[in-house]
Amino acid sequence: MEGNAGKRIKCKAAVAYGPGQPMSVEDIYVDPPKAGEIRVKIVGSGICRSDLHILDTNIANDFTFPLIMGHEGSGVVESVGTGVTAFSPGDHIIPLWIPNCQKCDLCMNRKTNFCQTGTQETMNVMPDGTTRFWTLDGKPIYKSIGCAAFSEYTVMPIESVIAIDKSVDLEKVCLIGCCVVTGYGNVVNVAKVDRDSQVAVFGLGAIGLAAIMAAKECGARRIIGVDINEDKFPIAAKFGATECVNPQKLPDGVATVEQLFQSSYGGLDYTFECVGNVRAIKSAFESLNRWGVCVVVGLPPRGTDVPINPWLLLTGQKLTGSFYGGYKPREGIKYLMDKYMSGQLDLDLFVTNKLKLQDINRGFDLMRKGETIRTVIVFDK
Amino acid sequence: MEGNAGKRIKCKAAVAYGPGQPMSVEDIYVDPPKAGEIRVKIVGSGICRSDLHILDTNIANDFTFPLIMGHEGSGVVESVGTGVTAFSPGDHIIPLWIPNCQKCDLCMNRKTNFCQTGTQETMNVMPDGTTRFWTLDGKPIYKSIGCAAFSEYTVMPIESVIAIDKSVDLEKVCLIGCCVVTGYGNVVNVAKVDRDSQVAVFGLGAIGLAAIMAAKECGARRIIGVDINEDKFPIAAKFGATECVNPQKLPDGVATVEQLFQSSYGGLDYTFECVGNVRAIKSAFESLNRWGVCVVVGLPPRGTDVPINPWLLLTGQKLTGSFYGGYKPREGIKYLMDKYMSGQLDLDLFVTNKLKLQDINRGFDLMRKGETIRTVIVFDK
Repeated sequence: MEGNAGKRIKCKAAVAYGPGQPMSVEDIYVDPPKAGEIRVKIVGSGICRSDLHILDTNIANDFTFPLIMGHEGSGVVESVGTGVTAFSPGDHIIPLWIPNCQKCDLCMNRKTNFCQTGTQETMNVMPDGTTRFWTLDGKPIYKSIGCAAFSEYTVMPIESVIAIDKSVDLEKVCLIGCCVVTGYGNVVNVAKVDRDSQVAVFGLGAIGLAAIMAAKECGARRIIGVDINEDKFPIAAKFGATECVNPQKLPDGVATVEQLFQSSYGGLDYTFECVGNVRAIKSAFESLNRWGVCVVVGLPPRGTDVPINPWLLLTGQKLTGSFYGGYKPREGIKYLMDKYMSGQLDLDLFVTNKLKLQDINRGFDLMRKGETIRTVIVFDK
Repeated sequence: MEGNAGKRIKCKAAVAYGPGQPMSVEDIYVDPPKAGEIRVKIVGSGICRSDLHILDTNIANDFTFPLIMGHEGSGVVESVGTGVTAFSPGDHIIPLWIPNCQKCDLCMNRKTNFCQTGTQETMNVMPDGTTRFWTLDGKPIYKSIGCAAFSEYTVMPIESVIAIDKSVDLEKVCLIGCCVVTGYGNVVNVAKVDRDSQVAVFGLGAIGLAAIMAAKECGARRIIGVDINEDKFPIAAKFGATECVNPQKLPDGVATVEQLFQSSYGGLDYTFECVGNVRAIKSAFESLNRWGVCVVVGLPPRGTDVPINPWLLLTGQKLTGSFYGGYKPREGIKYLMDKYMSGQLDLDLFVTNKLKLQDINRGFDLMRKGETIRTVIVFDK
């Protein structure tokens, strides 16, 4: 692909034409990067439940179709736009689905991890309002969650990319960019789980398992995995769960999982909702003891409120959440990348499937059925 | 009243016979204190909105009637039960509506301000399950919120009493025991309001005004009072409000107070709901910027959930609350008592009315109409 700098590239991408339809893996055109942008050849790209939510429900019509999903990617810089000095062709990168320009008021504010260069709109298009993706007959294709990592080539503004060490396996470290940073950070950075505490993680997908891994690292005494798919219980145990509960198979006389946690455990210190299910958020909040913290991690359907009992707030229970595990995106990814490179983070545990781009719809089906932890789309070299 | 130690006392009390009925101010009998208890002659007792909630709605049938309300009191120890060495007749005290034994696992846990000697039941009766209050024809009368400070004499377990300096004006310092510690503590201790922040306080009753006072002390740049009663706006200004908003009189094109705060203020850093109104809690939460904290302070009706948009939790908004301003009761009251004694807390600002016990129903009416900040029932010497 050398010599394409400044030119359109024709390549394969998984294009979603509308919610509820399978993606079409087809040839598209990818424009060269404009000023302040880079074009990246994607190497690995995890399938995240948020992509599934977008495809299955469009999370309440936020995005314009057709679009290319994929926001848990990794890749190699193919070419850079005018004025870009921070990146060079050949650099290894992870895309950031929340940008992090490190200059704006939000980036300078330690209390948030948003960036003023990121808006609802730039989830779907580039900061200049245009797209770099086109069908072969010249119709625009958009992005979702800012990255478009289910394309062999993508274009990102430099605010939305972090360079990483060239020695690491790009097929693995893509996971750090979403599920790992999200699950880990919400435990370590948002909730700040205490040693000897009792923790429950609702939802044993990749985010939930990263949360369990982090809770183990924090020294939690009891780490309870909650899922309706018991096949995931032995996997959760590998990550550090001390026990698992199926809310559909509770002991006699116990109606809800929150009732179980209140009666048998005296209420929990920390709960993490890693599904995006409104009923599970309510359960997670009502499972707490009076100084407990419930962290919302999963992406719930838009426009659906969670009914919260305000008396539990008065008695001291807290409700919080975050994107990116509450980290500034660059800080969180750098921290976890260092952890991975020093051998303290086992990414292999997360990867249950590797598929080629043409099989991406099968990867989505596996996630729908709950038969996978993480499927990574591995791109042709 | 000397020489009554060990004997029943006949005295006046405001007895509530059931929700929705005015109280009956009548003679009752008050038993002598049992082991670990003290009997107190009440001097002052503020009328708190929680009392009104109990009388008007029984906050969903929590309490057994007939009962004596009043939990924002002050008084003088009349006699002590067997084994009581920490208090002597003549000591000045404030009753605690959450006990604080300073020995149990909860009292030793810095993350909560509850005490194992306090239960739902001990809000209504003594820790041994019995009452000290009787009608003249021998029927039991119960307490509410543990104190029964709308009686000339009350009996409290020593876990639920704090001794205070004898030099202070008991008619004033009763306020410290509920509205002041609650409003002040939620700002300073729970939310930890930052210098230069933007704050809104929903509800300009005594708790709301104490919150405003505390926000001013924290150096908040903008302190916005929110109430439908504009008569309270000049009072709020005296406490430190920089501006006030009537949610029923918003500018053209602005539908809700949260919309006003989002559009004109970019979202607020801290909001405090000091009414107990579910709609106001939702407004307060949705008024926040992405690193804002909403603190639930008012007592909402039992069994009514607040619909919370979980996406706001993901973007970083936090939801919390507390009783007693999040302080261990003894610590909070001691801190504010010291503040009062050193001239840094003006309690006079809160007191709009002083009434005798026989006029207590008028005091409740004034609060229902929103025509009072704090009415203090002042007992005959």
